[in-house]
Amino acid sequence: MTKQDAHTPSSATSESRELGWHKGYLSGSRADLRVPVRRVHLTSGKDVTLYDTSGPYTDPAIETDVRRGLPPLRQNWIIERDDTEEYAGRELRPEDDGIRHTTPRGGAVPHGRAAGAGLDGLDAVFPGRARRPRRGREDTGGRSAVSQLAYAKRGLVTPEMEYVAVRENRAPEFVRDEIAAGRAVLPANINHPESEPMIIGRAFLVKVNANIGNSAVTSSIEEEVEKMTWATRWGADTVMDLSTGRNIHTTREWVLRNSPVPIGTVPLYQALEKVNGKAEELSWEVYKDTVVEQCEQGVDYMTVHAGVLLRYVPLTARRRTGIVSRGGSIMAAWCLAHHEESFLYTHFSELCEILRTYDVTFSLGDGLRPGCVADANDEAQMAELETLGELNRIARSHDVQTMIEGPGHVPMHKIKENIDRQQEVCDEAPFYTLGPLTTDVAPGYDHITSGIGAAMIGWWGTAMLCYVTPKEHLGLPDRDDVKTGVITYKIAAHAADVAKGHPGAQDWDDALSDARFEFRWEDQFNLALDPETARSFHDETLPAEGAKVAHFCSMCGPKFCSMKISRSINERFGLDAGEERPLDEEEIQAGMLAKSREFAEAGNRVYLPLTD
Amino acid sequence: MTKQDAHTPSSATSESRELGWHKGYLSGSRADLRVPVRRVHLTSGKDVTLYDTSGPYTDPAIETDVRRGLPPLRQNWIIERDDTEEYAGRELRPEDDGIRHTTPRGGAVPHGRAAGAGLDGLDAVFPGRARRPRRGREDTGGRSAVSQLAYAKRGLVTPEMEYVAVRENRAPEFVRDEIAAGRAVLPANINHPESEPMIIGRAFLVKVNANIGNSAVTSSIEEEVEKMTWATRWGADTVMDLSTGRNIHTTREWVLRNSPVPIGTVPLYQALEKVNGKAEELSWEVYKDTVVEQCEQGVDYMTVHAGVLLRYVPLTARRRTGIVSRGGSIMAAWCLAHHEESFLYTHFSELCEILRTYDVTFSLGDGLRPGCVADANDEAQMAELETLGELNRIARSHDVQTMIEGPGHVPMHKIKENIDRQQEVCDEAPFYTLGPLTTDVAPGYDHITSGIGAAMIGWWGTAMLCYVTPKEHLGLPDRDDVKTGVITYKIAAHAADVAKGHPGAQDWDDALSDARFEFRWEDQFNLALDPETARSFHDETLPAEGAKVAHFCSMCGPKFCSMKISRSINERFGLDAGEERPLDEEEIQAGMLAKSREFAEAGNRVYLPLTD
Repeated sequence: MTKQDAHTPSSATSESRELGWHKGYLSGSRADLRVPVRRVHLTSGKDVTLYDTSGPYTDPAIETDVRRGLPPLRQNWIIERDDTEEYAGRELRPEDDGIRHTTPRGGAVPHGRAAGAGLDGLDAVFPGRARRPRRGREDTGGRSAVSQLAYAKRGLVTPEMEYVAVRENRAPEFVRDEIAAGRAVLPANINHPESEPMIIGRAFLVKVNANIGNSAVTSSIEEEVEKMTWATRWGADTVMDLSTGRNIHTTREWVLRNSPVPIGTVPLYQALEKVNGKAEELSWEVYKDTVVEQCEQGVDYMTVHAGVLLRYVPLTARRRTGIVSRGGSIMAAWCLAHHEESFLYTHFSELCEILRTYDVTFSLGDGLRPGCVADANDEAQMAELETLGELNRIARSHDVQTMIEGPGHVPMHKIKENIDRQQEVCDEAPFYTLGPLTTDVAPGYDHITSGIGAAMIGWWGTAMLCYVTPKEHLGLPDRDDVKTGVITYKIAAHAADVAKGHPGAQDWDDALSDARFEFRWEDQFNLALDPETARSFHDETLPAEGAKVAHFCSMCGPKFCSMKISRSINERFGLDAGEERPLDEEEIQAGMLAKSREFAEAGNRVYLPLTD
Repeated sequence: MTKQDAHTPSSATSESRELGWHKGYLSGSRADLRVPVRRVHLTSGKDVTLYDTSGPYTDPAIETDVRRGLPPLRQNWIIERDDTEEYAGRELRPEDDGIRHTTPRGGAVPHGRAAGAGLDGLDAVFPGRARRPRRGREDTGGRSAVSQLAYAKRGLVTPEMEYVAVRENRAPEFVRDEIAAGRAVLPANINHPESEPMIIGRAFLVKVNANIGNSAVTSSIEEEVEKMTWATRWGADTVMDLSTGRNIHTTREWVLRNSPVPIGTVPLYQALEKVNGKAEELSWEVYKDTVVEQCEQGVDYMTVHAGVLLRYVPLTARRRTGIVSRGGSIMAAWCLAHHEESFLYTHFSELCEILRTYDVTFSLGDGLRPGCVADANDEAQMAELETLGELNRIARSHDVQTMIEGPGHVPMHKIKENIDRQQEVCDEAPFYTLGPLTTDVAPGYDHITSGIGAAMIGWWGTAMLCYVTPKEHLGLPDRDDVKTGVITYKIAAHAADVAKGHPGAQDWDDALSDARFEFRWEDQFNLALDPETARSFHDETLPAEGAKVAHFCSMCGPKFCSMKISRSINERFGLDAGEERPLDEEEIQAGMLAKSREFAEAGNRVYLPLTD
């Protein structure tokens, strides 16, 4: 993977040249609204414009430094709205980084640059500029909601909405209306101004999330930041930081300050660290403290397993694989230990009041999702979904943007019921599914078992697909696994966009197919989802540079290239590929006869020499 | 891939031991009817029995030698039927191996061991035992049909039918009736007695074909034989030899004599070689000669592009990617050069008369399949399908088994129409599709773009899926690509079997999921479609042998294993996973209360130590 190892932010310049594309921008109604796109250069001189998630790292004009973080592109838009305030923010504590109370000097420390400075064993404090957190300003009856949903309901089109409108080639008012109706979310915490606005909803391009995160077992901060930039380089629309080990807070700080895409988390994981992993010691207070901590850092959406109710836990007892969601099983254990209803459920409105003042989006977790095809669509799963529908309505009444998480392991014939039920029960809120995996028998290949289900459920209306890597069930994904997972899910998402007839989605396929038909190898490579891999596979068989313009494809060899023959058929009809004018019978017959004579005169040579 | 490099036939013994499974046999009504199965050993001492395509190579009791070929397991069954005869057979000619008439001693040579002996430049004559070809005996009105279809129509249950009945766990009469109705085929050339009977039909397990074959550009005989055994090792149900270069005949001889699965070919490729690649010089005579040559060698099914009619060619002229099928484009060129109807169409009945006397199955090729999503389900494709339906009825009237080939590149929303139309137009003859690829934008990953479509069309009724490797559109697949292609398609086929509710299909998923839930890592690995990969991915994260029995999974780390928590929930209810007895509310409440006390008494330890 030496070629790929070159794709670090620092080498973006040389990379984009070598890849035959450059970073371009579409402009909006204001100078500071520039929407990044990937412009692929065709040999014809024309460009093909593709959606781009890679952030400033692929713009040679912008010098990036992971130690400083990305420029806060949304900062002015947020300030302009004049409904937020800066404040001191919550104090950072050693346990925020999973440091036990055994450290001698482990007291409270100020927020920002000095965060955790000098704490024993804190591995890599983020050195970037200190930034005080913002929140919605005090208003009649609590703090004002500064969510895109609140603005949309009031009929406002924010710069964020215009940004995604340009990005998705839709009208800004359409974007606003989809958000206002709760059919789409635009995750954009006011404390993550570095993120480039994107939208998640069934009326828009199907999105892909990539999970990263260190665990108690392995991985480091640098690796996670690297995985994040690597995932967005290949097309991840959002990234979830699922870190569970040491340095959770600091790792998240590094990831957020350097991320051009929205970042999601599961606050419960960090809360559990704060109580030394003892689920029964979890409390609303510890959880709330963790949520505020993450809201101030800039987390854009949070998975909350508030649908795991005490009465649902017994429904999982006779399952084949019980509860497989981490958050779900932690809450189930808490409920069992206390014999009380989940604090996430009983304090849900309070939680909404917090999230609305930072514009953090809910991702209501499916803690009872099936962990094998045998458990798919069972009573426990469907009961939880009903509760998620109830919570979605509560969140909406608080102006908190909300999406709903879905399974999991589901055989093909049971997939459609999932999206149909969810859309009905959750008032068309965006569905965000993990896979689903269509069979349990292929550990090591679950990016494929799940890519199949992901493409199908995307076609049927799922708004975002959470990737699965080859390491699922087996280990933590490394850099190559992250790439494989993202590419596989971009395939599923794009196949879904094409099947949905999403405006313009098939243009990409058509451009690549034209290049294939016309033997423009370089154009094929540059248009490919993964140019390096396409190019290297081709070169293995025909290493010569010349082969890339030769009029035969490497699969068949000189004499067997059907594309070549087919082209000569078109030539006989005096047609270019894709010419629209219909031919009448006479023209065709005349053309055929004339061409058959030429054919003979040309010495009946079906295959032209490679040099032509 | 060192571990994989060990999987050569010669090391089958050590392999099966190291993999935790052994080759077993199910017995039929006669001593010489033994159906191979893969018996996976569980730590519980129980075995899980899986379908096995790997042939004698994975049976330590059978010593195999690719230079001698496999034992002719069906020989006695064929002779017993007493309706065939041995004969001298067609003489081998230099051009059969693509050797031009420039070789000094390039005359006719005897068939069999000495085949091509001494011919200049013939690279690797098959040294195995000479075998004179068989054919149906002369009968009133031509030679008798010795096809499984002819027997089934007469109400006979052949040993081949019983073999697949045992293999698929169905009644022999059911197998016979599906074949008699033309809804299933059992490809079994009487000159390929080495092959283990298998069946292709929508009422049976979805099958997978793997393409191999050298080309003018690269590859050798040894490589192709190795690819064939490698493909069947991973689950290929049939193999197509698409060789196009030198030594076509000899390569095929090596492949056939060593193949435990049916072998398919496209005779047109070799015929074209015989006329030095000049499509316009093709003739019925050259083609017929090639078909007889391949029938005598033992090819089990042949792709025939007889549906490409002169009047259909113009329909492709305005396509985005024209004609992408090799066979289709060769026949289109022939039609254009001669302005006559295809000789494959005009001589189709004659062709049937040949195939029936060897029991070679038709695979009616879709020469006009779409080569990009833009061309899917167009007029040219559907017109050809109508003709394939007509040819299917003719073949059936001659007692020739027949399946129909399908696309290609098809977006998800247009896939179902393909299988529905085919089943209607072709009287429910088995459908055999390539992919379909659901998007054109991912060269290098077309095993995935097509695996998505393959799973869906398999669920909807396709009987066999032709694999696509990562090298599709780019180059020739190597050993690793063959494995990736087969594994991807086994996933698609199995996901389809589960979605179809095929009897017992989900047992495999359930067995693996039980092992996963109970942390039986070794059982998970051994039950996996690819045990080596699953094991190695897991070991990357937790190399220690002990980790495989530790009660946490490597994804989450000790504190986050939801499976572990879930198990303890089950224990609280005094339940084993999968226990059937329903619990009443009282039991559950009592159990919960009692267990919550134990929970406290056990020091509120949610997570048991790793050592338990």
